Amino acid sequence: MADYLIGIDGGGTSCRAAVADASGQILGRGKCGASNILTDPDTALKNIEQAARLAFTEAGLGEDLVPSSPALLGVAGNNVAHAVDYISARLPFRRFEIVSDGLIALQGAIGNRDGAIAILGTGSIFIARHAGTVHYIGGWGFQIGDFGSGARIGHAALQESLLAHDGIRPQSEMTRTFMAEFGDDPSKAVDFARAAYPNDYGRYAPRVLAFAEKGDTAALRLMREAASLVDEALDRVSAVNGGEGPLCLLGGLAEIYPRFLAERHRARLSKPAADALAGAVSLAAATFQHARHELGAS
Amino acid sequence: MADYLIGIDGGGTSCRAAVADASGQILGRGKCGASNILTDPDTALKNIEQAARLAFTEAGLGEDLVPSSPALLGVAGNNVAHAVDYISARLPFRRFEIVSDGLIALQGAIGNRDGAIAILGTGSIFIARHAGTVHYIGGWGFQIGDFGSGARIGHAALQESLLAHDGIRPQSEMTRTFMAEFGDDPSKAVDFARAAYPNDYGRYAPRVLAFAEKGDTAALRLMREAASLVDEALDRVSAVNGGEGPLCLLGGLAEIYPRFLAERHRARLSKPAADALAGAVSLAAATFQHARHELGAS
Repeated sequence: MADYLIGIDGGGTSCRAAVADASGQILGRGKCGASNILTDPDTALKNIEQAARLAFTEAGLGEDLVPSSPALLGVAGNNVAHAVDYISARLPFRRFEIVSDGLIALQGAIGNRDGAIAILGTGSIFIARHAGTVHYIGGWGFQIGDFGSGARIGHAALQESLLAHDGIRPQSEMTRTFMAEFGDDPSKAVDFARAAYPNDYGRYAPRVLAFAEKGDTAALRLMREAASLVDEALDRVSAVNGGEGPLCLLGGLAEIYPRFLAERHRARLSKPAADALAGAVSLAAATFQHARHELGAS
Repeated sequence: MADYLIGIDGGGTSCRAAVADASGQILGRGKCGASNILTDPDTALKNIEQAARLAFTEAGLGEDLVPSSPALLGVAGNNVAHAVDYISARLPFRRFEIVSDGLIALQGAIGNRDGAIAILGTGSIFIARHAGTVHYIGGWGFQIGDFGSGARIGHAALQESLLAHDGIRPQSEMTRTFMAEFGDDPSKAVDFARAAYPNDYGRYAPRVLAFAEKGDTAALRLMREAASLVDEALDRVSAVNGGEGPLCLLGGLAEIYPRFLAERHRARLSKPAADALAGAVSLAAATFQHARHELGAS
């Protein structure tokens, strides 16, 4: 019988682990570097194991208990078969379950209830639970998805700056500032854009917001356009789950978005109950306690 | 003294050349493969020379006259110094001038008058001449520019198809058709988008138009949004050249755009007087006759 449970929140910038008792009560936490199973699975494996060991140490438990404790991992890329196969063959846990990073975030934010979350960071995705079934809406990455995300806001801001430089749209303090950083040379902005990853664009998002808060007309329009797409996605979320339960915004833009959203959504917003790591532990308790009962409390 | 002049219209898919007498009267034409001086300068050099030889042959002139005849080349990438340096050191013409592909298109379309063109193909750019000065507006490539272009329309159509697949936007025959081609699997559409070049997106544009013509609501909205950006750019063109002279649409989308544009621009549209190759010859005549006079009719 498993005395301890492990929850893992594996992210692109850090990996967090928690150890809990059989009831799901968290006893210790650990944090390590990136655990992106798609781009660097070996580093991910190393950091997942190290984060788990740190959690056991913080809890005053021996690291030798790690391999025998069942683990639930929430990671991006859980739907990419070859990546999951690769780490599944190498994880240090005798029993484990791999789910999406979105699912542990949903579980942390709203627990077992029906409800929904919108994750608004460098990317974006909307997740709703209705009558126990989880629905994923949006996402799909920067190229043709992730509407309302920081990367899309930053990208739109550079486009707007070029349009203003050409006199097609009015200049603003924001467009002048961004173009000045490229020496007022559009070809330098184009060079940046050709090489840019989503997080390169995403770094512009907080600056766009800061300009919007100062009343910059171009920045305000971009924020309203982004929020309008988020409103549309939240309309879909409401249609999927009947508008039942809490709606939580998560991610780096969670604090800034409410003021730009339509009142029908703003009125539903609530604070997340807990974070994604707590969600992973909660799912670990549900998953492995359930399995234990099925197996006759082995 | 130069008895013959050469005009070159160097494009990404083909290179066209014309030989003209000293007055600019075209005597023969030749056509070869791609002449992209940025991505494949050696092939470009080969095709530029071969197209010129074919033009002399068609005119019944000896190919041995090619090197001594001054040439004006209109090519994309004329503002990229290292590419221009590379081909300048290797072109088979004793005297030559390299200008933008846009400038020869402008010259062909409106001759020596003030006026403007909008090139609407896989990419987009707007060029206006006012009191003899040429102004370039827009362009800048697919990543953060080229608004209203075929690539941007195709990109928007795939985005719309994903939004419809997720139920965020209404489905239409267009969105269902495009998603069905990816087996109704968004991750396949994302794979396409990750690898797509602008012309991969651009191939969707005529199909978006065809759906719009059948009244497809999503396709109509995308065409109107694209046209709205073109309207804004044309407003800037009018501001730059005082709305003087003809306005010509060029490129693969030239035929389809007028019906979507604002009446204030539609009323100004006229057919281009001639093509870009004729524009190159016209500029060759102006450039080298002028030079000849300066040099004392050498």
